[in-house]
Amino acid sequence: MAADPQKVRFGIIGCANIARKVSRAILLSPNSTIVAVGSRSLEKAVAFAKDNNFPKSAKSYGSYDAVLDDSEVDAVYLPLPTSLHLRWAVLAARKKKHVLLEKPVALNVVELDEILAACESSGVQYMDATMWMHHPRTAEMKVFISDPQRFGQLKAVHSIFSYNSGTDFLNNDIRVKPDLDALGALGDIGWYCIRAILWASDYQLPKTVTALRNAEFNKAGVILSCGASLLFPEGELATFYCSFLGNLTMEISVLGANGYMRVHDFVIPFHENTGPFYMNANTKFAELSIGIEPSPTEHLVKTELPQEALMIKEFSTLVGKIKEHCSGTEKKWPTISRKTQVVVDAVKASIDKGFEAVEIVY
Amino acid sequence: MAADPQKVRFGIIGCANIARKVSRAILLSPNSTIVAVGSRSLEKAVAFAKDNNFPKSAKSYGSYDAVLDDSEVDAVYLPLPTSLHLRWAVLAARKKKHVLLEKPVALNVVELDEILAACESSGVQYMDATMWMHHPRTAEMKVFISDPQRFGQLKAVHSIFSYNSGTDFLNNDIRVKPDLDALGALGDIGWYCIRAILWASDYQLPKTVTALRNAEFNKAGVILSCGASLLFPEGELATFYCSFLGNLTMEISVLGANGYMRVHDFVIPFHENTGPFYMNANTKFAELSIGIEPSPTEHLVKTELPQEALMIKEFSTLVGKIKEHCSGTEKKWPTISRKTQVVVDAVKASIDKGFEAVEIVY
Repeated sequence: MAADPQKVRFGIIGCANIARKVSRAILLSPNSTIVAVGSRSLEKAVAFAKDNNFPKSAKSYGSYDAVLDDSEVDAVYLPLPTSLHLRWAVLAARKKKHVLLEKPVALNVVELDEILAACESSGVQYMDATMWMHHPRTAEMKVFISDPQRFGQLKAVHSIFSYNSGTDFLNNDIRVKPDLDALGALGDIGWYCIRAILWASDYQLPKTVTALRNAEFNKAGVILSCGASLLFPEGELATFYCSFLGNLTMEISVLGANGYMRVHDFVIPFHENTGPFYMNANTKFAELSIGIEPSPTEHLVKTELPQEALMIKEFSTLVGKIKEHCSGTEKKWPTISRKTQVVVDAVKASIDKGFEAVEIVY
Repeated sequence: MAADPQKVRFGIIGCANIARKVSRAILLSPNSTIVAVGSRSLEKAVAFAKDNNFPKSAKSYGSYDAVLDDSEVDAVYLPLPTSLHLRWAVLAARKKKHVLLEKPVALNVVELDEILAACESSGVQYMDATMWMHHPRTAEMKVFISDPQRFGQLKAVHSIFSYNSGTDFLNNDIRVKPDLDALGALGDIGWYCIRAILWASDYQLPKTVTALRNAEFNKAGVILSCGASLLFPEGELATFYCSFLGNLTMEISVLGANGYMRVHDFVIPFHENTGPFYMNANTKFAELSIGIEPSPTEHLVKTELPQEALMIKEFSTLVGKIKEHCSGTEKKWPTISRKTQVVVDAVKASIDKGFEAVEIVY
């Protein structure tokens, strides 16, 4: 039985753990399905398809190439180690497959530019798999921080993403291996903080990026924790901190002249179908500076589909438009992905230069 | 009618707005009372005493000296502009008055050392008026962040204190006048963030302090907003941001290897008799990285007396011990006040040096 022709047909390239969550999302999204999975080991691919409730018609391959050569595959999801992204994303694009690329998307912006050029040249959609961008909460938070009366001019952003990865991870995970994920914590989780900062600043690039003097490395030189301050053209300041060595925490706080907003589960909502955020506007000290007025409020945003399924749905909608209506690709996603990578690179450069300020020339 | 001799008898030097809150606190605290208030204007002193429900026996003076010369005054509260602290705190100490000094305590640590030496030499108690130190919540938060299992090694601290001070303040308030409060926002509110960072790190001093590249100044060169990163000997990182130009916000977040804690009203609790904080320990991603386990919890700490009255009670207890039992002074308070000032000075120095890292040599 062939897959529903109206659905975007995904091939999964690589059986990383995160691919389990994204496979579920592809199957949850109403406009997508999975038609193939490829691993270097056929057994692994077969087991992955079975364990993740793939449609019976889905094919399992013992190579990545086979997925790219499958004419039924419209789009690929690439959860490979970062150092393999350039090769496989470019190849996928050349084979006219739309590319949903796991983050960090590349080792540096030079690589990413090759990937984006290949996608552009083939007319395929590119998107990075930054799931939280697609939660309806994200849009509602943006409405609040764009409100001139209740929020006002952006002044400062702080973001943190950490998890205590544990001994096994620190010894064995691809994210701490210099040949696989050379960006370490900066790429794996700092990516989200940087995206959050860019999101809050309407995707303006910062003027200067200065890594904070506490970066920690493993013996191979891979970043285990780091932070940076980012200065924007209008004087706004952003700071972030990411770590494989601190308790699981994922926050954004955004300060405006007239308002303040915070979210404590921005990367992965604590609850799958609701996402809270907290805000306050035009806050003043109460009489005698005892307490404040008004009190902060919680705003709960519901979602029928989890954010990763909404990501797939959005990506598949764009792919569908290209397939069915010969539309052009949506430039927003490659643009913000590239800006995120530019800042990742600047943080890395600042660390490498002994925490000097790095200017961003766009 | 003389004041109850068992109570510590306060003289208030200067009728600043904050003195209203502290006067109320002195009257709320069971072991203190107000016996005098001095202003450069007698009318102001008389009106202040009346407006703030001073005991009828309290004296109003048209000078600060008169308060210091009043033998009934055991202790003075000094809410004068910072540039006047050195003169009046030293004079108060020489006249054997215990000194409760509003923050920022001095323009720099050289001045503060003169004040502390004068207090030490006269055997009078010194304390700065950092109210939140005295809320029982502060002690309970400390218990959590000291727990080796639930919190573990300290990794990162972030603190923010801002308020949108408004045009009138920015034109007229003493806190933006270079001759009165030359430290501007750094002294007025950055003080609290720095204290929070030192509190979280068990009053270790940082190794280096680097101001963040976004400091804003008024035309007279007074700091309106600034931030800094602080690197501690064990590699812990702290950042803070303070601003007269952002919505009223006052937060600490503290990340440990195994736990996380945050508080959103650390300087002035939103509600006078309860203070919440939020914590999570040993947090893991749930299966498929959908959600987390366990969820963060809110911990509410009640207090019978507001934190500023607890501050007065603690100060008065120490003064009472000195008066009645000839005890020595409690060194904790001058010690942490001095460390806070050392870091304030380092941030200022870093700003003045164009955001270079400043080493702290203790």
